[in-house]
Amino acid sequence: MSGSILVVNSGSSSFKYQLIDILTERRLASGLVERIGEELGRVIHTVSGTGEQQDETSFETPIPDHTSGFALMLNAFGEHGPSLEGNAPVAVGHRVVHGGARFHQPTIVTPAVVRDIEDLAALAPLHNPGAVQGIEAARSAFPSVPHVAVFDTAFHQTLSPAAFSYAIDAGLAERFRIRRYGFHGTSHRFVSCAAAEFLGRPVEELNQIVLHLGNGASACAVAGGRSVETSMGMTPLEGLVMGTRSGDIDPAVLFHLHRKAGLGVDELDELLNRGSGLLGMSGRGDMRDVIAAAESGDGPSGLAFEVYLHRLKHYVGAYYAQLGRLDTIVFTAGVGENNALVRAGALEGLEGLGIRIDPQRNEARSRIARVISSDDSSVTVLVVPTNEELEIARQTLACTGRKGGLRADGRP
Amino acid sequence: MSGSILVVNSGSSSFKYQLIDILTERRLASGLVERIGEELGRVIHTVSGTGEQQDETSFETPIPDHTSGFALMLNAFGEHGPSLEGNAPVAVGHRVVHGGARFHQPTIVTPAVVRDIEDLAALAPLHNPGAVQGIEAARSAFPSVPHVAVFDTAFHQTLSPAAFSYAIDAGLAERFRIRRYGFHGTSHRFVSCAAAEFLGRPVEELNQIVLHLGNGASACAVAGGRSVETSMGMTPLEGLVMGTRSGDIDPAVLFHLHRKAGLGVDELDELLNRGSGLLGMSGRGDMRDVIAAAESGDGPSGLAFEVYLHRLKHYVGAYYAQLGRLDTIVFTAGVGENNALVRAGALEGLEGLGIRIDPQRNEARSRIARVISSDDSSVTVLVVPTNEELEIARQTLACTGRKGGLRADGRP
Ligand SMILES: Nc1ncnc2c1ncn2[C@@H]1O[C@H](COP(=O)(O)OP(=O)(O)O)[C@@H](O)[C@H]1O
Ligand SMILES: Nc1ncnc2c1ncn2[C@@H]1O[C@H](COP(=O)(O)OP(=O)(O)O)[C@@H](O)[C@H]1O
Repeated sequence: MSGSILVVNSGSSSFKYQLIDILTERRLASGLVERIGEELGRVIHTVSGTGEQQDETSFETPIPDHTSGFALMLNAFGEHGPSLEGNAPVAVGHRVVHGGARFHQPTIVTPAVVRDIEDLAALAPLHNPGAVQGIEAARSAFPSVPHVAVFDTAFHQTLSPAAFSYAIDAGLAERFRIRRYGFHGTSHRFVSCAAAEFLGRPVEELNQIVLHLGNGASACAVAGGRSVETSMGMTPLEGLVMGTRSGDIDPAVLFHLHRKAGLGVDELDELLNRGSGLLGMSGRGDMRDVIAAAESGDGPSGLAFEVYLHRLKHYVGAYYAQLGRLDTIVFTAGVGENNALVRAGALEGLEGLGIRIDPQRNEARSRIARVISSDDSSVTVLVVPTNEELEIARQTLACTGRKGGLRADGRP
Repeated sequence: MSGSILVVNSGSSSFKYQLIDILTERRLASGLVERIGEELGRVIHTVSGTGEQQDETSFETPIPDHTSGFALMLNAFGEHGPSLEGNAPVAVGHRVVHGGARFHQPTIVTPAVVRDIEDLAALAPLHNPGAVQGIEAARSAFPSVPHVAVFDTAFHQTLSPAAFSYAIDAGLAERFRIRRYGFHGTSHRFVSCAAAEFLGRPVEELNQIVLHLGNGASACAVAGGRSVETSMGMTPLEGLVMGTRSGDIDPAVLFHLHRKAGLGVDELDELLNRGSGLLGMSGRGDMRDVIAAAESGDGPSGLAFEVYLHRLKHYVGAYYAQLGRLDTIVFTAGVGENNALVRAGALEGLEGLGIRIDPQRNEARSRIARVISSDDSSVTVLVVPTNEELEIARQTLACTGRKGGLRADGRP
């Protein structure tokens, strides 16, 4: 079978896209349409060449809405390639952040599904409305192929009630749908399957801890290919220290800041989601800058780095206990794939738990999956690059029921 | 040396007391003065007899303030014994919940210390003002002996910045003194020392996890007698599932409840501190009732029990990782000392981490320190009854510089 999948990740004022070839799983093109609704929008369209080579064009123009954004994207394909006739998308896959407890798997978009995603905006007010705008615009642009919604939360729908319930009033929790949903599910799924494949072992046999460390960051305990615990909660705010988010914190800190600093709920929300984490502690939200500053003696950056590692180690231990037995720890995403200091620091002192990093393997730079533990480590530590767009493409194809090509079938 | 220590634990409308003999460490009497400031207050005074025997008297009378409460206490000692002449207190020890970052150890009360404790009411508005009232009334009642403040937070002042810092704005954190303080320190200290003593090993050599499971509950990682991590945070709200407190929760749940359920900050505070935990999930705040209901098929109680255990296991794993090497896990307080189901459930499936409970030992009922792990468990699991009043008495005596008797000296 030939053809492609178009993957769309849409927010309220921008969307990203990738065109992925079904047979080769190669990315043929990618792009970003941003500042939708502002005075001047921008389109960046990148055509993949051979190897690492690629060809980027960008231009600015008013983009009143998502529909006109998709028209501009089609123009860009027409002008700069690749041709959408030669590589016709057989389906469009949409990343949707919040699938609530409603969506356990990728789902063909129908008007009822759109209504459900809109309804879940109650839980993800910053994310789901943008996804709906993207879906509707994409359906007008590609009216004759199936559209599939792929949810960040779906992979974690296998959590047990003991793992997903907060210890709060049961009536309120039910009425307002308060529970742990977890996010980054597409990445956790992709990476845990890729790790199994890399090791040449069935994912069903492996107990894994996946550490997705990007701007957002989350840990996931994966038993036999199923998510059994994850660190993000009802929203992506809970858990690890992130670029600008606090992760775990005594909720009473909010009461205290309200009473003593006079901050309202919206300001507290903004503070914890956008002014905390590495940025709040050190003034720097990018891990590279934090490390560089720490190395040149900046105290707050050094502390931010230490807190980041301390929290990571906390979750590694906690999930080891939840799993009972542990085969692999897998680092992924921007920080996890690229930073040896973070990986070494997070697992330092865990030799007694059978976890031993090999410093040379850890420091070797590479863009492919690799082992970084020593041969006498009973837990195998890996770095595995994530690829959420490819995972969405695979799941989209599988969901449309087409055979061949992208390999989402037959996995748990 | 002969004599006694009077231990006082004072809230804003009640106080508890114990008179403890210095040489024997026996409790001579205990009591409760409650409903201070209400129309009708109550005094309960209990005189210890031989063995388990004790003699309780109680009466109701208006108690306008703490000072009149102490006068009534003195009357009760005069009428029902033991005589405060024969067992004269050589010092009074006061439990104080919040010592902030200011108090690292028990401290002789001076007017400056009282001002500092008052000042820390910003961090513990429900607790510190009552402690100050108790201290001032007790100083009028016992003007010629030293008074010592013993802080719940002090034991955790050894936490590293990586462990006590939240990932929030550094300026706000400093200005509003936002950090992890930890509580139950007196109990964690007592129990970790008692565990070492029971095992006949120096506390300096042991890495321990202490699980204090009462109405409030907290975990503490103790390395060589020093607290290195603990689950309660800036306030006692964070961490484990408790009788009425939520423990850990995505802070964004509060934003959601504010927006969707219209709850204000004070209501959210009330909800998380008094209407959550076991009570919120199941309608029952007492673990005995939760278990009984779960056993007779009540779904919400069963879930509350599972969430309680899941959270416990999370912290056992997390603190194992922070310690790197683990010698003992110690259960204490009401639930921890008395409930074999909780102990077994919290550590179930951790054999791969070297933790193995012996079912028979675990189920044997006893009031003294005991081992409940099997002989082939590499981590020794203990039950050790806590005694916060005795620890306060020991620290009070040590702080006054007197020699002999209660054994607080020479410990870390
Ligand atoms: N060599 C590196 N060392 C540390 N951090 C890095 C390195 N390379 C990339 N990063 C970090 O990765 C993060 C982005 O990761 P990514 O997975 O792209 O994030 P997301 O998808 O969550 O936006 C940035 O904070 C960036 O600083
Ligand atoms: N056998 C038991 N099984 C379960 N819980 C018990 C048992 N005995 C006492 N408890 C619980 O212990 C808790 C009180 O513990 P305690 O240490 O006295 O609390 P605190 O000092 O925090 O008020 C209560 O919730 C009570 O139900």
